[in-house]
Amino acid sequence: MGFDGMWSALTGVGTDPGGGYTREAWSGADLELREWFRQEAERRGLDLRGDRNGNLWAWWGDPDTRPGVVAGSHLDSVRQGGAYDGPLGVVSAFAAIDLLRERGVTPGVPVGVACFTEEEGARFGVPCLGSRLLTGVLEPDRARGLTDDDGDTLAEVLKRAGRDPAALGRDPETLGHIGAFVELHVEQGRALDGLGSAIGVAASIWPHGRWRLDFRGRADHAGTSRLADREDPMLPFANAVLAARTAAERAGVVATVGKVRVSPGSANAVPGHVAAWLDVRGEDERAVRDLVAEVGAGVEVACESWTPEVLFDPAIAARLSAALGDAPVIPTAAGHDAGILASAGAPTAMVFVRNPTGISHSPEEYAEPADCHAGVVALADAVKELADGLLV
Amino acid sequence: MGFDGMWSALTGVGTDPGGGYTREAWSGADLELREWFRQEAERRGLDLRGDRNGNLWAWWGDPDTRPGVVAGSHLDSVRQGGAYDGPLGVVSAFAAIDLLRERGVTPGVPVGVACFTEEEGARFGVPCLGSRLLTGVLEPDRARGLTDDDGDTLAEVLKRAGRDPAALGRDPETLGHIGAFVELHVEQGRALDGLGSAIGVAASIWPHGRWRLDFRGRADHAGTSRLADREDPMLPFANAVLAARTAAERAGVVATVGKVRVSPGSANAVPGHVAAWLDVRGEDERAVRDLVAEVGAGVEVACESWTPEVLFDPAIAARLSAALGDAPVIPTAAGHDAGILASAGAPTAMVFVRNPTGISHSPEEYAEPADCHAGVVALADAVKELADGLLV
Repeated sequence: MGFDGMWSALTGVGTDPGGGYTREAWSGADLELREWFRQEAERRGLDLRGDRNGNLWAWWGDPDTRPGVVAGSHLDSVRQGGAYDGPLGVVSAFAAIDLLRERGVTPGVPVGVACFTEEEGARFGVPCLGSRLLTGVLEPDRARGLTDDDGDTLAEVLKRAGRDPAALGRDPETLGHIGAFVELHVEQGRALDGLGSAIGVAASIWPHGRWRLDFRGRADHAGTSRLADREDPMLPFANAVLAARTAAERAGVVATVGKVRVSPGSANAVPGHVAAWLDVRGEDERAVRDLVAEVGAGVEVACESWTPEVLFDPAIAARLSAALGDAPVIPTAAGHDAGILASAGAPTAMVFVRNPTGISHSPEEYAEPADCHAGVVALADAVKELADGLLV
Repeated sequence: MGFDGMWSALTGVGTDPGGGYTREAWSGADLELREWFRQEAERRGLDLRGDRNGNLWAWWGDPDTRPGVVAGSHLDSVRQGGAYDGPLGVVSAFAAIDLLRERGVTPGVPVGVACFTEEEGARFGVPCLGSRLLTGVLEPDRARGLTDDDGDTLAEVLKRAGRDPAALGRDPETLGHIGAFVELHVEQGRALDGLGSAIGVAASIWPHGRWRLDFRGRADHAGTSRLADREDPMLPFANAVLAARTAAERAGVVATVGKVRVSPGSANAVPGHVAAWLDVRGEDERAVRDLVAEVGAGVEVACESWTPEVLFDPAIAARLSAALGDAPVIPTAAGHDAGILASAGAPTAMVFVRNPTGISHSPEEYAEPADCHAGVVALADAVKELADGLLV
């Protein structure tokens, strides 16, 4: 099945009644997507392998004989997210193998397609969960104890999915298969659109992190408790939302409060507790950390994830750019599994496909079919280029 | 089983792991509480009757022969609420019947114990749902279409509980049984504590309402969308929270945002939509409405419930106060089923039991056992007084 067939097979999986896609890790939708991955691997005669952390690998050639080139991304989504963020990279990786075979090209090293688990962190709060565990950046004990909004731990959810939570952790065997990694992704900004280019190559990922802020007060009756007697955590929370925006504008970074939990959450009760998640990113790590310190002053703050700046290998980026017809080399503010792998020392690159509006994490996320097809060609060329590099 | 036995039988039902009680209408906890009500009625040889709207009635004597005195309240709670708001009135009503019987008093009219459905509005957003439907204040079509946080309509939930949603609506037969109504309730303020009195009688209920505010924007990626390009509804929402507090202080009313829903609700996505519930109450109806107009300017505002000022019949309040040893007559800012019945024209009164902290809708809600026992005596006296009044 070619790119268009694979793409339309995915359109019905995990649709959200509120719009877009909700494909959280280990949900029914995620299990359907994993089954789809298995079938696409089988259809191509690729060797499907799991790993200790729930990531999926489909190999053309045997990576136990020598490390190969891996192309891939993830299939999970944020809540009510778009169709492209993640799946475009996985579908394009399968299609790139098809294209190489059509061209009669057999790279001299194994070629793999990867699907990482819980890249968005939409369910357990830590983005790139699968690649962080694989590379050992995240402690398995901490991962097992992460909870979703229902209060279920990752360990419980894995058990229910028939997986062994004790297996989680750094996986040297799987890491040893990765000679080079390339992730194709829809651009989440308008740089390529501005440059009039369908395809780009990543230069770097901004440092970014996610913090949980806990505002605590005392629940009370919304009618009978006097304003002066209240300890209403909704007020410092609202101040923090506005302070984060003001500080972000001043510092030239971006700050977002996208998730809030209010307890008890009744319309006729003063809340006792507001938990809010603050996402901050910027070119300058110090500015990011200063903003969190300012907004979080006097509040319980817990860092849920932190990713320092990632600089993709400039030599590889330059080679890929040349191989892709002088594709522009651009930075991004979005985190990716490729960033985690690059930080762990794997030769890594990213290929971006133009996004005409720049909108992402939204049902409005979009890329033109012609640009997606150009992405497949670029990814096939990139895999070939990286494979040739490994042969040197 | 006496007051203390009934009270401890309820302590295990609907406990919330986060603290306090969560007893939403038609939940498992609510069904357990209904079964408890049935058993207490049976234990006393009272005649259990349902009505069209899911309220429960336990009669001593036959209300079809002549209207009687009804004492009661509700068993549902807000999320993570206290033990007293609601159940104290129901338990005390059964105990008051026991006390009258111990005293050898047989009132000349039937005496009933009532349990109203969804008084808090914690599940479907409209407080006093059962009494509003009973009295015809709420249209059954609107009620059937109300949705809970899972998106289930009241009609669906009733069907699942084995009840007929088509039956909802004004119930003249049941209303005809109510010659007079008295609701005992834990005070939700500190007026009685300040006056050094265990027991009080209600003068009035402040006008109050609940409004839903919908802030709409556009979901986007938390890293890659520039601040200037965002339409982030979290910002106007935060401004509204702070504006409501400032306006409430200025106007001498109370305003609360206790429930918030953020979509898509991912830490790494700019929200597309924030829904917030605003509860406003005050002595002066005009001040309440002005506040909503001010805070809701430029936002989608929907009134989910509105209760004008309720003045309990001053002659009845004076008679009860005298019968209860010159109990103070005090206003309240909390809505009650008694307020709905009073507005519908039934002779209605309320008896309050002292709350030493004034805290309510919170696990910290409390009344001293001695004050609760004094409440049972007061309620028995009130029932007798009201029964005598019906005999005149």
